[in-house]
Amino acid sequence: MTTVYGMRASGNCYKLQLLLSHLGRQHRWVDVDSTRGETRTPEYLAKNPNGKVPLLELEDGRLLAESNAILCYLAEGSAYLPTDHWQRAQALQWLFFEQYSHEPYVAVARYIAKWLPADHPRQAELPRLRERGHQALDVMEQRLSKSEFFSDGGYGVADIALYAYTHEAPVGGFDLSAYAAVRSWLQRVEAQPGFVPQSY
Amino acid sequence: MTTVYGMRASGNCYKLQLLLSHLGRQHRWVDVDSTRGETRTPEYLAKNPNGKVPLLELEDGRLLAESNAILCYLAEGSAYLPTDHWQRAQALQWLFFEQYSHEPYVAVARYIAKWLPADHPRQAELPRLRERGHQALDVMEQRLSKSEFFSDGGYGVADIALYAYTHEAPVGGFDLSAYAAVRSWLQRVEAQPGFVPQSY
Repeated sequence: MTTVYGMRASGNCYKLQLLLSHLGRQHRWVDVDSTRGETRTPEYLAKNPNGKVPLLELEDGRLLAESNAILCYLAEGSAYLPTDHWQRAQALQWLFFEQYSHEPYVAVARYIAKWLPADHPRQAELPRLRERGHQALDVMEQRLSKSEFFSDGGYGVADIALYAYTHEAPVGGFDLSAYAAVRSWLQRVEAQPGFVPQSY
Repeated sequence: MTTVYGMRASGNCYKLQLLLSHLGRQHRWVDVDSTRGETRTPEYLAKNPNGKVPLLELEDGRLLAESNAILCYLAEGSAYLPTDHWQRAQALQWLFFEQYSHEPYVAVARYIAKWLPADHPRQAELPRLRERGHQALDVMEQRLSKSEFFSDGGYGVADIALYAYTHEAPVGGFDLSAYAAVRSWLQRVEAQPGFVPQSY
């Protein structure tokens, strides 16, 4: 059976829980807590030299890192990854947008605001993270004002990836009230068959 | 004809030059200089609301952003993007690694060291960028000690993406002398048919 090494509080790991639930695919989940150094042990680094979760392990021992690459791998052949060349390119565009222009701001702001003490020096990063995170939300709002989902192929991996941290953006101090299209899209995601909320 | 909006000094844009040269594919190149605000004009933001280069425009006006998504789109059907499900997943894993764990450190260190004045406040970021960049190079070294290229499918989009900033890592203050496997791989990339060096 396929194994996922992950941490339930991580949005990057929740992406896989959500897709696997949509697919109704059985899997084994192994909790690995990066906040307790469990991604930096020699045993874990032998599996993923980059020391991050999530990590997918196939029954034959093959290993795949990077949440969005794992989403594409698992979604292949399903409705969650378009087969059309252009629609697949759109999905990839938004997956790379998520990792470069969204996650480093929206997810990191959530982490600092939720888990670090109020007097922690990293609290000073929040204004810049929120400025850049709002820019990412602006880009999403523009797309979602014209389209129901991120790829013209409909709901799929790009929506799953962007939902993972956007639904918790208010935890990081982002006010979504000005983002009507984003808020409607969050509801459309939550109405998908097999949707599961993040729990941790 | 396909148009690329890009900046020749940008490694993210050079990726597309390199792949297009491998493919022998004619295209139109429009210089857009982000350092002169040309990615933030209303005209450019109408094409790419995220305000970044490179950007691909098809003859019918469709637009695709994100360098690594564009690589996959253009490489589809060629030897540079594996058709095998697992090998394609490996290529995607390394493309996401490049954008999340490599480019934000190796490319940003190059930018600060090469283009900003010696007394610019961002020079203070260099020690941390170099520490994280070396971690990315360590991960690459491990893979390349066991394999010629990043995907088991052979030379392709993942190598092109990682070559773009790795070959200029010394400009950002990274010493590649301890990375024998990375240096051999750089030479293997440069020996590929249709290879073109970055020029700016």
